[in-house]
Amino acid sequence: MARDASRVETFSDGVFAVVLTVMAVELLQYGPARATGRELPDALAHAWPTYLAYVITFGIAGQIWLGHHNMWRYVVRVDQLLLVFNLLVLLFVAAIPFTADLLSDNLRGNATEQRLTAALYLGTVLGESLFFNLSWWWARRRRLLHPDLDPQLARAVSRRLLLRPLLYLIAFAFVFVDPILSLVLYLLLVGLSLIRRPGDLPPADVDGAVSDRGR
Amino acid sequence: MARDASRVETFSDGVFAVVLTVMAVELLQYGPARATGRELPDALAHAWPTYLAYVITFGIAGQIWLGHHNMWRYVVRVDQLLLVFNLLVLLFVAAIPFTADLLSDNLRGNATEQRLTAALYLGTVLGESLFFNLSWWWARRRRLLHPDLDPQLARAVSRRLLLRPLLYLIAFAFVFVDPILSLVLYLLLVGLSLIRRPGDLPPADVDGAVSDRGR
Amino acid sequence: MARDASRVETFSDGVFAVVLTVMAVELLQYGPARATGRELPDALAHAWPTYLAYVITFGIAGQIWLGHHNMWRYVVRVDQLLLVFNLLVLLFVAAIPFTADLLSDNLRGNATEQRLTAALYLGTVLGESLFFNLSWWWARRRRLLHPDLDPQLARAVSRRLLLRPLLYLIAFAFVFVDPILSLVLYLLLVGLSLIRRPGDLPPADVDGAVSDRGR
Amino acid sequence: MARDASRVETFSDGVFAVVLTVMAVELLQYGPARATGRELPDALAHAWPTYLAYVITFGIAGQIWLGHHNMWRYVVRVDQLLLVFNLLVLLFVAAIPFTADLLSDNLRGNATEQRLTAALYLGTVLGESLFFNLSWWWARRRRLLHPDLDPQLARAVSRRLLLRPLLYLIAFAFVFVDPILSLVLYLLLVGLSLIRRPGDLPPADVDGAVSDRGR
Repeated sequence: MARDASRVETFSDGVFAVVLTVMAVELLQYGPARATGRELPDALAHAWPTYLAYVITFGIAGQIWLGHHNMWRYVVRVDQLLLVFNLLVLLFVAAIPFTADLLSDNLRGNATEQRLTAALYLGTVLGESLFFNLSWWWARRRRLLHPDLDPQLARAVSRRLLLRPLLYLIAFAFVFVDPILSLVLYLLLVGLSLIRRPGDLPPADVDGAVSDRGR
Repeated sequence: MARDASRVETFSDGVFAVVLTVMAVELLQYGPARATGRELPDALAHAWPTYLAYVITFGIAGQIWLGHHNMWRYVVRVDQLLLVFNLLVLLFVAAIPFTADLLSDNLRGNATEQRLTAALYLGTVLGESLFFNLSWWWARRRRLLHPDLDPQLARAVSRRLLLRPLLYLIAFAFVFVDPILSLVLYLLLVGLSLIRRPGDLPPADVDGAVSDRGR
Repeated sequence: MARDASRVETFSDGVFAVVLTVMAVELLQYGPARATGRELPDALAHAWPTYLAYVITFGIAGQIWLGHHNMWRYVVRVDQLLLVFNLLVLLFVAAIPFTADLLSDNLRGNATEQRLTAALYLGTVLGESLFFNLSWWWARRRRLLHPDLDPQLARAVSRRLLLRPLLYLIAFAFVFVDPILSLVLYLLLVGLSLIRRPGDLPPADVDGAVSDRGR
Repeated sequence: MARDASRVETFSDGVFAVVLTVMAVELLQYGPARATGRELPDALAHAWPTYLAYVITFGIAGQIWLGHHNMWRYVVRVDQLLLVFNLLVLLFVAAIPFTADLLSDNLRGNATEQRLTAALYLGTVLGESLFFNLSWWWARRRRLLHPDLDPQLARAVSRRLLLRPLLYLIAFAFVFVDPILSLVLYLLLVGLSLIRRPGDLPPADVDGAVSDRGR
């Protein structure tokens, strides 16, 4: 069976790749621009929010790419609505550098600034995970996934995907207490999501099973 | 039969991916730049044309990508002229962020500005759909499409593709009445084009038929 | 036989896609920036070198992409040196927006400016076609091409590829007479190269022959 | 066996492609911007650090791409941790334009500036090669490589990969003596790494063996 989904992956990867490197372009613009008036070490130290935004963007977009990669391995066919949901995921992914930049710029701002940037960041990450959940749910409902995919695994993925926006909400509730604490908590959650939980099948086995039987 | 068209898809996807994320880079440049003199909420609110341009670009380029994806699924071989037509489609696609930016910046400008930006926007979208129609027509004429593609479906696609520039013209005729109304109308058309019409075969079945018989 | 060259195509396509859209980003930066002081129609008309550079970049990089696509269809294996030659082709391709921008900015400058930009443009396009010729020559010599590729066709491609830098040299000799005439001549050459010459086999047949016998 | 690694290659290639062309965008911004106040030849000559940074970025990122291409040819399956290591490689690769720009801007600066930029450059290249080594080691340990890959070759690749960070360290030790000498030495090392050493099997044979037996 031809994998109709492979072009969707190529296209999405292009968007992810540009998003990951957008902040690298910002590094170029902040660094030397500030260096005109100041000493270099001082100018570089002053641009720390850019470095933070770079690492945040890479962490968040990288983690979403991992999830995207894991989900789309199981998709063998696409329909119009799944493509639209995927485009909406990418709409929010492409806004991550903007919100990460705002967040790192206003981490030490006043209460209004912190709440506003947190709300924008929250909206972006929640929007992304909402449409990510929708695309997985739609792919399951319309039988666009690999026919040999274990239904139990599919349900486990659904549960895990639903967990993500909930955890994001909790982490961001802390923004209104302390934005630095919230960010640390958030990065901890991202880190935790990279560790396999005992209930999941190891990815290699799942993939092996799929490719042995059906491809 | 090797799908000679796959590299064309990869290349076009790269252009689409950059186009979709170009406006995200603009978000970065407008937002903080304006924030120097103003309060953050005010600066962000003031940059609303950038957000509008971002969403317009994503909507339009995303819709064109969907059409491109649907068309190129049926292309199995390419010749020089089809590649040239595709490059000309991409020439207009890559100009969408520019015209979307102009449009959102001058939505509340005077009559001359509104007409000029509407004409540029109109030219870009019409140019794109002209060469899109040409590439589909050429691919049919030179038998570059999948041999098992139902001729009735091919004709239906041709009709639907021809409809698009016509609807664009109607929507943009309203620019000279009221640009806001025209934009709303235009976005409605884009939304409508995402809904399958009863006359078309469901995409999944078509694709299944193609992959079962020929690939 | 696995097509070891496909990743090289994906990577090169990424570079080509960014190069094609780089000038689209420039459209964004010139247009509205100039609009602050001037009337919009005036500001847009004033930015004509940017539009010219956009079209030149698209034309040149698009034509090189066509040649790259045609060549790499026949490559089935790669070695280290072929990859290095390809990287050097891309080094010059990525500089095209810069030289096209310089060229369009200085078309109406004084004699020194015209000669300098022409020399830079000449160097970029010649450098690209030099390493392009080298990569084709190396792929033939090291038998990295498809074994069923007709040796007569391979020789014809070699001759045609060698013609390109020679024609570029002639077109650019005219820069020192009249840069506008030279540009028109150059664009005519690019246009001519898109038309198949009688001596060549039609691409579709060649590809069919290759895929029927060997893939 | 389906090559689960191909999407990782597409995604990484996107990042590499943007990194290679980021400096080309910088060429655009430096060149004409400086041309306003100065004569064109003078303005272009003055922007030499940008050209140097462009060539350095292309050289370094191109060389890393070659290594990435060579390694990932052997990877047939991926797990979560390998993807995370690859993302961390890309995090450092995406920072190369920034450090190359800093390096070329401060080559003729005072001792503090030279040391600081060298340390940043060193950190970036070392970080990249550390996670590159980690991903190869992990792929070997978790048996994610092609089963027919000669264990002797795998060990040779491991040794060669470990050599790279060590040679980088030596080259950069010279930064504290003379940054220009260090850069020349570094570029010599990059050049040397492109030449096959006698102990290695020719890439074409290895690839042939892999594709004949297993794919």
